[in-house]
Amino acid sequence: MSVQSIDIEQKEFYEKELLRKAMPPSSLGQLSQLSVRLALIDPRPLNTLSLLLFAGDHGIVEEMVTHSPKEITYQQCVNFAQGGGACSLFAKTNGVELTVVDVGVDHLFKAFDHVLDKKIAFGTRNFAHTPAMTEEQALAAMEVGRSLVREKHSQGFDAIAFGEMGVGNTTSSAALSAALTGFPVSSVTGRGSGLSDEELRHKCQVIEAALQHFPQRDVMTVLCNFGGFEIGAIAGGILEACSLHLPVLLDGFITTSAALVSCALEPACKDYLIASHLSGTQGHDLLLSYLGINEPVLRLDMQLGEGTGALVAWPIISLASKILSQMTTFSEARVTDSTAILQEIGLV
Amino acid sequence: MSVQSIDIEQKEFYEKELLRKAMPPSSLGQLSQLSVRLALIDPRPLNTLSLLLFAGDHGIVEEMVTHSPKEITYQQCVNFAQGGGACSLFAKTNGVELTVVDVGVDHLFKAFDHVLDKKIAFGTRNFAHTPAMTEEQALAAMEVGRSLVREKHSQGFDAIAFGEMGVGNTTSSAALSAALTGFPVSSVTGRGSGLSDEELRHKCQVIEAALQHFPQRDVMTVLCNFGGFEIGAIAGGILEACSLHLPVLLDGFITTSAALVSCALEPACKDYLIASHLSGTQGHDLLLSYLGINEPVLRLDMQLGEGTGALVAWPIISLASKILSQMTTFSEARVTDSTAILQEIGLV
Repeated sequence: MSVQSIDIEQKEFYEKELLRKAMPPSSLGQLSQLSVRLALIDPRPLNTLSLLLFAGDHGIVEEMVTHSPKEITYQQCVNFAQGGGACSLFAKTNGVELTVVDVGVDHLFKAFDHVLDKKIAFGTRNFAHTPAMTEEQALAAMEVGRSLVREKHSQGFDAIAFGEMGVGNTTSSAALSAALTGFPVSSVTGRGSGLSDEELRHKCQVIEAALQHFPQRDVMTVLCNFGGFEIGAIAGGILEACSLHLPVLLDGFITTSAALVSCALEPACKDYLIASHLSGTQGHDLLLSYLGINEPVLRLDMQLGEGTGALVAWPIISLASKILSQMTTFSEARVTDSTAILQEIGLV
Repeated sequence: MSVQSIDIEQKEFYEKELLRKAMPPSSLGQLSQLSVRLALIDPRPLNTLSLLLFAGDHGIVEEMVTHSPKEITYQQCVNFAQGGGACSLFAKTNGVELTVVDVGVDHLFKAFDHVLDKKIAFGTRNFAHTPAMTEEQALAAMEVGRSLVREKHSQGFDAIAFGEMGVGNTTSSAALSAALTGFPVSSVTGRGSGLSDEELRHKCQVIEAALQHFPQRDVMTVLCNFGGFEIGAIAGGILEACSLHLPVLLDGFITTSAALVSCALEPACKDYLIASHLSGTQGHDLLLSYLGINEPVLRLDMQLGEGTGALVAWPIISLASKILSQMTTFSEARVTDSTAILQEIGLV
């Protein structure tokens, strides 16, 4: 199923509707623009959100690109699924359904861990030497994302958010982003969980070398060479959500790099993407601009991943979706519309 | 009752607590800092918010400083109290109690309007010629704010937000702000509901002339000369909330100008003020800096007033208040604390 562009001709209609609401024009600022963007995707109020959090391990950690030991990936998956961690607290507080999905963690979860088993492999291979995934694996990861989104859609969720967990995945996302956008490696490579200047230089060198080693730039080959299983699953999930006309809440750098893959395959995806926040991660602003989604809802310098940015922004996005349908107009409220009067007598 | 400063020595304790949470240091960005600020005021999770929306009319509208006819003040009060308008929709959506209070509207409300009657006068006098309020009136307005905050505190609300409605009140707030801070009039005077360049120049001239006409700069005289009834009520309400150790959610330019009055009377008030958002109104950033509260939660270019910025930010503020008490630590979650390990072996 392909992704259809939204009907941009409706934009003027919704903008006129906003002017009828009992408030001075533009006084809700970015919230007004968000309400129009959301209405173009789905004019109904958005009340329910499902967060799909995909987890995977990364062979590239052998190259010493992070301080974090790999075991943190599986430990955090268990923590999240059992209600601990920031994402679980934020999801519970904001009434969001959270599903933690193993697509490629290097660990065998127990049934009582409550991590959904969609494992494709025990981590990717080290892309310093070998493509991270085979094409078969990448397609399987994308299908995991697609099928879970179909499930959430059939369960009646109004919107989908994506989160991720995977030690080493900022390195994978940076390589993938540089390959797909052409941005310099240093501009899209950050300190992850706290690298020093020297360690950051090393991380950039590892990525540079891999980009030279694998010079192909078509999107599926780039995903196979540098991507992670969680990135593939998110890219597939975004494609499916957009084809089902569901608004997609991006989180930070990793989910946005996955969106690069989706948009390279189906450019109309960008119409359905909401930038929940501008992350504190190096290069996130560049990726959002590249995708043409320039108005992040939040700018709180968060850089945790796990879908936390989307979770924090959700109440605002849900609220914005209600402005057009639920706010009273000047005439309904019997409030004088002074702008309309001034326009009528030619004063503005 | 006077306002006590928060115990800043607790700050280090809470910052250390944050480092024990199962996430990389600083990865929640501004949300972490907000959680510490809130814990210093009240370490318990904040679950309930009461928004007190004060309304008043302004004699200065005789000087043609706004396009909006004065009747909009009372029309919107009725609209808000009956569930219409942005503030009512936002309050309902985010589970916030909204009280619309007439402290000085030039209209006689009916009982079925559901506007709380605390009327002191039918609008202020025109401060181009006469002090806007007598000292008796200003003190009465402050006492309205104080007593309602006491009531909400005794009802068990965890936090208080202030909103306002009053055609002409950006002119009143700009004059009051310029007088109390010394900032140039043009730097704190905005276009209100859409003035042209020429109309904005006229608005500035009206304010400049009034500042020269009333040269006294002690805070109560400034409030009497330029303030509105709603501004006095908010200033009093802030003083009371701070003396009761309640977190105070500011909204935009008007409520922040009222906070200038509270902080001039009791400097410790600033410890209890949360900047819900940076408004799109000219000069709001200056007032926040002047008060020393530099990290607004939202930057959405909203400028509606009515408490809407506070209402939109509330879910984030409530969420931030839960991080310290409800998020799992590394040891609770059985997640490896790699930063602690690296510190132990002297690597970071």
